[in-house]
Amino acid sequence: MQDENELLNDAEDILDQKIELAYELIEKKDFQQLKELLGSMEPADIAMMLEEVPIEKVPLIFRILPKELAADTFVEMETDQQEVLIRAFSDEELEQVMSDVFVDDTVDSIEEMPANVVRRILKSVTPERRAKINEIMHYPEDSAGSIMSTEFVDLTENVTVNQAFDKIRETGLNKETIYTCYVIDGNRKLVGLVTVMTLLTSPQNAVISDIMDENVIFTTTDADKEDVSKLIEKYDLLAIPVVDLEHRLVGIVTVDDAIDVMQEEAEEDFAKMNAITPMEKPYLKTSVFNIWKSRIPWLMLMMVSATFTGMILSRFEAALAQLVVLTAFIPMLMDTGGNSGSQASVTIIRGISLGDIEFKDIFRVIWKEIRVAALCGLSMAVATFGKVMLIDHLLLRNDSINWKIALIVCITMACTIILAKFIGCTLPLFAKKIGFDPAVMASPFITTIVDAVSLLIYFAVASMVLPAYF
Amino acid sequence: MQDENELLNDAEDILDQKIELAYELIEKKDFQQLKELLGSMEPADIAMMLEEVPIEKVPLIFRILPKELAADTFVEMETDQQEVLIRAFSDEELEQVMSDVFVDDTVDSIEEMPANVVRRILKSVTPERRAKINEIMHYPEDSAGSIMSTEFVDLTENVTVNQAFDKIRETGLNKETIYTCYVIDGNRKLVGLVTVMTLLTSPQNAVISDIMDENVIFTTTDADKEDVSKLIEKYDLLAIPVVDLEHRLVGIVTVDDAIDVMQEEAEEDFAKMNAITPMEKPYLKTSVFNIWKSRIPWLMLMMVSATFTGMILSRFEAALAQLVVLTAFIPMLMDTGGNSGSQASVTIIRGISLGDIEFKDIFRVIWKEIRVAALCGLSMAVATFGKVMLIDHLLLRNDSINWKIALIVCITMACTIILAKFIGCTLPLFAKKIGFDPAVMASPFITTIVDAVSLLIYFAVASMVLPAYF
Repeated sequence: MQDENELLNDAEDILDQKIELAYELIEKKDFQQLKELLGSMEPADIAMMLEEVPIEKVPLIFRILPKELAADTFVEMETDQQEVLIRAFSDEELEQVMSDVFVDDTVDSIEEMPANVVRRILKSVTPERRAKINEIMHYPEDSAGSIMSTEFVDLTENVTVNQAFDKIRETGLNKETIYTCYVIDGNRKLVGLVTVMTLLTSPQNAVISDIMDENVIFTTTDADKEDVSKLIEKYDLLAIPVVDLEHRLVGIVTVDDAIDVMQEEAEEDFAKMNAITPMEKPYLKTSVFNIWKSRIPWLMLMMVSATFTGMILSRFEAALAQLVVLTAFIPMLMDTGGNSGSQASVTIIRGISLGDIEFKDIFRVIWKEIRVAALCGLSMAVATFGKVMLIDHLLLRNDSINWKIALIVCITMACTIILAKFIGCTLPLFAKKIGFDPAVMASPFITTIVDAVSLLIYFAVASMVLPAYF
Repeated sequence: MQDENELLNDAEDILDQKIELAYELIEKKDFQQLKELLGSMEPADIAMMLEEVPIEKVPLIFRILPKELAADTFVEMETDQQEVLIRAFSDEELEQVMSDVFVDDTVDSIEEMPANVVRRILKSVTPERRAKINEIMHYPEDSAGSIMSTEFVDLTENVTVNQAFDKIRETGLNKETIYTCYVIDGNRKLVGLVTVMTLLTSPQNAVISDIMDENVIFTTTDADKEDVSKLIEKYDLLAIPVVDLEHRLVGIVTVDDAIDVMQEEAEEDFAKMNAITPMEKPYLKTSVFNIWKSRIPWLMLMMVSATFTGMILSRFEAALAQLVVLTAFIPMLMDTGGNSGSQASVTIIRGISLGDIEFKDIFRVIWKEIRVAALCGLSMAVATFGKVMLIDHLLLRNDSINWKIALIVCITMACTIILAKFIGCTLPLFAKKIGFDPAVMASPFITTIVDAVSLLIYFAVASMVLPAYF
C-alpha cells in the first residue's frame, strides 16, 4: 500500500517538479528547454502553471508552445488570462490560435469578454466559423444549443465503410468525439448512428444504412442542458446528437461538457440551499464585494422575516416575564425545528434535482415524512423529557424547572418536528409545481417559517399546561 | 421553439407509450410482440419498466430478451430485482447472463447480495473471471481498484497497426472502452497509449512503440476513487488506466463510473451538510425506519448541545425577567448568526471538496471572510437599527423598544456575523487538516456554536449599555 501511494505521489511530485522547473526556466529565460518541458505537460497543467506567472510574461511563454498545444492550453485558461493573451496577440497569431479552438469553447470565452475583444475574435475567424459562433450564441442560455459542439463526423446513408473511414481520417483529428458517427439523409435529418467499432467489424464495402443503429437517443437545441446531461448519464453516452426543429443534425453535446453542467448544477443547489446567490468564479478568485453581494440579500430577508418571531415573543411578554424559564428552551426548540425541516427539504430538493421525485409523488412523500416525523418526534420528546429532568433539573439544580415545564417543552418538540417535516417536504414540491427553483425553499426559508410556528405551538401548549400565567 | 419542445416531448411520449404498450402485452401474454418491442428499447428503460411489473413475472419477461440486451438490462436493474432473477434462473441461464456482464458490474451486484446468492454467482462464472472478481472485491472500499473495469484493450509495444486492429476486432466488442488502447511492455508495465484515431491515421505496418503517446495520465489501485474522478474531469478523459504497485496495468476506470462517483460524493456532501447520515438508496425506496435512523442522531446531538444556550439564558434569568424585550430579538440574532456561519462554511466545504481550497490557503480564506463579514456586519447593523426603530418602535408601537435596545441588537448583530463567518471558514479547514470530513462541520455544528456565542455577546453588550439591569 505504502509503495502504491508513493507511486501516485510520484506522479503528483513529478508535476510539481515540472512546474517548479518551468518557473526557473522562465526566470532564466531558457526558452529552448522550457519549450521541451511544456511539450511533455498536459494543457490543463500548463494553464494552471501560467496562473502563477506574472501576467506580462504570459504571452511570451504562450508563443513558444506548439500550435495545437497552444490552442488546447488557451481553452483551459481563465477568461481574464485569455483576455490578456488576445490583447497581446497580433491579428495573425490570434487567427492561428482561434483556428484550432473548437467553436463551443470559443463561444464560452466570448461570453465573458468585453465587446472590443469579442469583435477582434470574431474578425479573426473564418466567415463559416463566425456564422457557427453566432448561431450558438443565439440559443437560449442553459439550452443544449448553447453548449453543443458543432465539430462531429456526419455520414450520409449511402456511403460505404471504406468511405466512412476516409471521412473520419480527413476530418477526424479536429473533432471532439469521432468514435460515434452520425448518419444523415439528403435533408441533413438525423437517421442513425454508427460507431467506429461497428465500422471496424464490418466488411469494407458494406453500406452505412445497412449497418447503422436507428435507435438514436437525441436531444433538441432548446432542451434544458441539465436534462441533456441526465440523458448522457442515464444511457452512459460519450456524446448525444442535437437536432433542430426540422430534426436536422446541428451539433453534439459531449460527456465532458455534461460533467461540467452536472457540477455547476450541484454547486448552484449547494449555494441556494444555504442562502447564497451562486457565484460564477471559484471562491478564492471572487472579490470581497461580489461575495458580499451574493450573501447580503438573504441575510436581510432573514432579518425582515424574523419580525414575526419578534412579534410573537412581544405578545407573550407578560407571560414570559413571570415564566422566564421558558426562554431557556427557545433556542433548542427553534434549532431542532429548523434542522428537522431542512433534513426533509434537502432530501426532497435533491430528489427533485436528480429526477427521483416528481410532484405526482407528493402524497407518497407526505405519508413517508409524517411517519418519519412521528418516529423522530416521539424519540426526541422522550429524550428531551429525560434530559430536562435529569440534567437541567437534577444535575444543574435549576429549581424553576419541573415536570410541567418538561412536559411543555417535549410536547412542543414533538409537534414542531412533525410540522417542520411536513412543511419541509411539501414546500419544495409546490415551488417546483409553480415554476420556482425548489432549492431556494431550503433551510433559511423553512427555518423562518418553522421558527414562528414552533413559538406559537410553544405558547399554546404552555397556556394549556400552566393557564395561570396566560 | 414550441415545435422543438414538441419534438423532445415526442421522444419522451414515445418512451411512455412503449412502456404502456409493454404492460398491455405482458397482461395479454403476447410475448412475440413484446420481444420485438423490447428490442427497440434501451436497457435503462427496460429496467425502469420492469420495476413496475409484479416481481413474479420479471423472470418470465427477462427470458425473452436477446442475450446481450438481457445482460445490459440486468446491470441497470436494482439489486433486489437482480436477486429475484438470480434465484429464478437455472444454472445454465445464470451462466449465460453473467458471461455477458462486465466484471466490475458483477462486483457491484455481488457486494449487496446475500451470501448464498453470491456463491451461486461465483459458481456460474469461469475460473478466470472468478479470480478477477475476487481481486476487485479485495481492494479497499472507495479505492480506484474497487471500481475499475478489467475489460480493456492492451497491446504490446512491438505489434503493428494492423495487428492492433485485429486485436481490437477480436476482443473489442465486449470491452467498455476500446477507443484508447494501452501499451504494455514484456512485464505488463504500462508504457504508453494509442488511440484508434492514431491507428487509423498511421501506416498499416507502423510499430506501436513508434506511434504511441508516452505521456500517460494514470492512477493506482489504492488511489481514492474521488481523486480518480477528478483526474478524469480535469483532463477530459474517457478512461484512465489503473496500475498496481509494480506499475503493471490491471484495469481502467471509465468516465461513466467517474460520473457516478462524482454524483455520489455530491449527495453525501448534501446530506452531511444538512445533518443527515447519507443513505444508499433513493428516498422513495428507503424505509421509514432507515430514514429515521439517518436523521435522529443529529437531532439528538443538537438537543444535547443546546444545553449550553439553555444554561446561558438561565444565568441571565434575572436580567431577562426585567428586560423581557431582549427576548424578542433572540430568534433573529440566532438565525442571522447561524446563516452567516453556514454561508461561509458551505462555500469553504465545497471549495475543499472540489480541490479549489487547501489548508495552506487558510490565511487567505480568513482575510477574505473577515472583510466580507465586516461588510455584511456593517450593512446588517445599519439595516437592523433602521428596522427596529422604524418598524418595531414606530410602526408596531412597541414602547419597551428604544434606541438603546436597538443599539444593543445591532452591535450584537455585527459582532455575531463576524464571529460566525470566522468560525464558519476555519472549522472545515481544521477538520480537513486533522482528517475529519469537513462536511459534518457544516450548518448544524456551526449553528450550535454560533448560538451560544451570539447569546454571550448579546448579554455582554446589554450589560454595558444598560448596566442597571445586570
